[in-house]
Amino acid sequence: MARIALDAMGGDFAPRATVAGALHALQELDSAHSVQLVGRTSVIEDELDALLAGELAMLAAQRARLEIVEAPDVVEMSEKPTAVLKRPASSMAAGIRLQVEGRSDAFVSAGNTGAQMAASTMLLKLHGTLKRPAIGTVFPTAREPVVVLDSGANVDCSPEELVSFARIGAVYAEDLLGRKNPSIGLLSIGEEPEKGNAVVKEANQLLRESGLNFHGNVEGRDIPHGASDLGPIDVVVCDGFVGNVLLKFYEALAPVLIGMVAKGAGIDQTKLVEAFKHLDYSEHGGAPLLGVRGVSIISHGKSSPRAIKNAITFALRAVESRMSEHIGRRLADAPAPAMTGGAGSVNKAASGQ
Amino acid sequence: MARIALDAMGGDFAPRATVAGALHALQELDSAHSVQLVGRTSVIEDELDALLAGELAMLAAQRARLEIVEAPDVVEMSEKPTAVLKRPASSMAAGIRLQVEGRSDAFVSAGNTGAQMAASTMLLKLHGTLKRPAIGTVFPTAREPVVVLDSGANVDCSPEELVSFARIGAVYAEDLLGRKNPSIGLLSIGEEPEKGNAVVKEANQLLRESGLNFHGNVEGRDIPHGASDLGPIDVVVCDGFVGNVLLKFYEALAPVLIGMVAKGAGIDQTKLVEAFKHLDYSEHGGAPLLGVRGVSIISHGKSSPRAIKNAITFALRAVESRMSEHIGRRLADAPAPAMTGGAGSVNKAASGQ
Repeated sequence: MARIALDAMGGDFAPRATVAGALHALQELDSAHSVQLVGRTSVIEDELDALLAGELAMLAAQRARLEIVEAPDVVEMSEKPTAVLKRPASSMAAGIRLQVEGRSDAFVSAGNTGAQMAASTMLLKLHGTLKRPAIGTVFPTAREPVVVLDSGANVDCSPEELVSFARIGAVYAEDLLGRKNPSIGLLSIGEEPEKGNAVVKEANQLLRESGLNFHGNVEGRDIPHGASDLGPIDVVVCDGFVGNVLLKFYEALAPVLIGMVAKGAGIDQTKLVEAFKHLDYSEHGGAPLLGVRGVSIISHGKSSPRAIKNAITFALRAVESRMSEHIGRRLADAPAPAMTGGAGSVNKAASGQ
Repeated sequence: MARIALDAMGGDFAPRATVAGALHALQELDSAHSVQLVGRTSVIEDELDALLAGELAMLAAQRARLEIVEAPDVVEMSEKPTAVLKRPASSMAAGIRLQVEGRSDAFVSAGNTGAQMAASTMLLKLHGTLKRPAIGTVFPTAREPVVVLDSGANVDCSPEELVSFARIGAVYAEDLLGRKNPSIGLLSIGEEPEKGNAVVKEANQLLRESGLNFHGNVEGRDIPHGASDLGPIDVVVCDGFVGNVLLKFYEALAPVLIGMVAKGAGIDQTKLVEAFKHLDYSEHGGAPLLGVRGVSIISHGKSSPRAIKNAITFALRAVESRMSEHIGRRLADAPAPAMTGGAGSVNKAASGQ
């Protein structure tokens, strides 16, 4: 039995998309689970009334499984992330606080991503020695999907942080994608260990001594294939600057490319768009903030009801698989880099760059 | 009248693809221009004989416009870039040296890219205070193509180097893409100047004071559109790590995506592949090494005769537009960052990150 809190006020199409998404999710989920709509009660109730009297009348039975949690304040998309820290009555802060108080098991928001990161870090706290959570996103590939992290939370990363991402990403791949002993690739500009920038070269050294199933360096071209010449990849580790650029490039490129190709080939584009649906990020239900002590799922700001529904389902899977607990344990069990033989080699790699 | 030197031994399909590409190029180019095939004379002559006696018999008239320049040695793809510096008799070194001696106007190779960079830097020298050349590649977009640099020559860049890339890229866009007052975007993870990693934040400051037509920060999603919400982009500036990852991701993603979509939509894939041709990098004829005093064009290792032909045509356009001379002048005219009001703001930006 899980209770999923949803930021009812978050996202470009809230509260309509959030309330509708919650109703759709409940219909799909086992009846033991419930959704908590966090936000302005009157706004949420009006939206519920309108939807259930109209297009979603067939979901009326789900209303009883919805709890409304009053939060009179909203952090807007355009506000600074830190604004949330001074706004305890915002739907974002209130929704996350439910987990701290043991009243909820997960939080989902399509609102201000920076604010969600700040509030999740501050209220839920982080595992181990992490300084910030990482965002894990799933890239569709020609093979199986690949987890890419960090996708935007950490722009300037140390080699040690990249190793933490590798450990965290491995748990994500195991718990939510069902991979056994996931293969971890380090994103670089050549497969040889000596290729890359200074941080990546050091990270390569550390990863080889990490006890993880380290695939070695992977290149940009390996991601769409979900594999390098050496075999399949489950996780791609990179700093949040590169990861964010790649993620946004991918999201925008797919429809553009398909439009160009359809035009060139004289093919009906609607047919292609239909086929393209499984590449749509909304189908993957959002990106978890990895490393927080709890579950906090980031949904796209433009989330449709369908995307919100998928994010809620995804949150439930994160809860049921105990991903956060596993991440905590994995980080705690990790050998401290400075105490292994790694340190010497790292210094060597750094001075040799 | 231009003389284009081609590394006849460079590339996975050399010397067949290189010799054939040279013949095709000459047929297309004005008769005043010539091509110099640099490599093992006997190998080149055998290849020429075979092609002209067979499938390329219709190009026999072009043979007279081909000069063979003997170079008995070859730098292999798998060798270290610096190997070329000790191999003056290699086709790579000999081909580039022709420009130094005033016997040629440009050099094209599909061989070892690192070696080409090293030899071009050493023999041709660089403009201004550049430490390394930058690789400029052209990304097809929904609008006009966009120049992305650096695409792999410089992995750890200073903010000042990113500004140099902006100046160089502007000349490339003017001279080879015909753009007037090109709009320069700085690749980051948000359009606000304060978004990005430490180097990018400083570069944003410097670019605003550079006198260039600075568009501001652009995101990964703006590249496929060839524009941000503010309008079209002609040049995207980034370090060579990010640029190389993006380039390889794009090259690999396009066919994978199209394969997936064709399968999903039950569309004949050959029709899509045909339509996709204008996205093919070989159509763009290679990437110039920007910043060298001369013309050195990198072709893909897997270059077909068609790709080699396009690279030769591209080299000719670089020669005729006097791009290298313009880059030298632009870098010489640039205000030194330390002497403008920029320095103070930069320190502020750096400490505030």
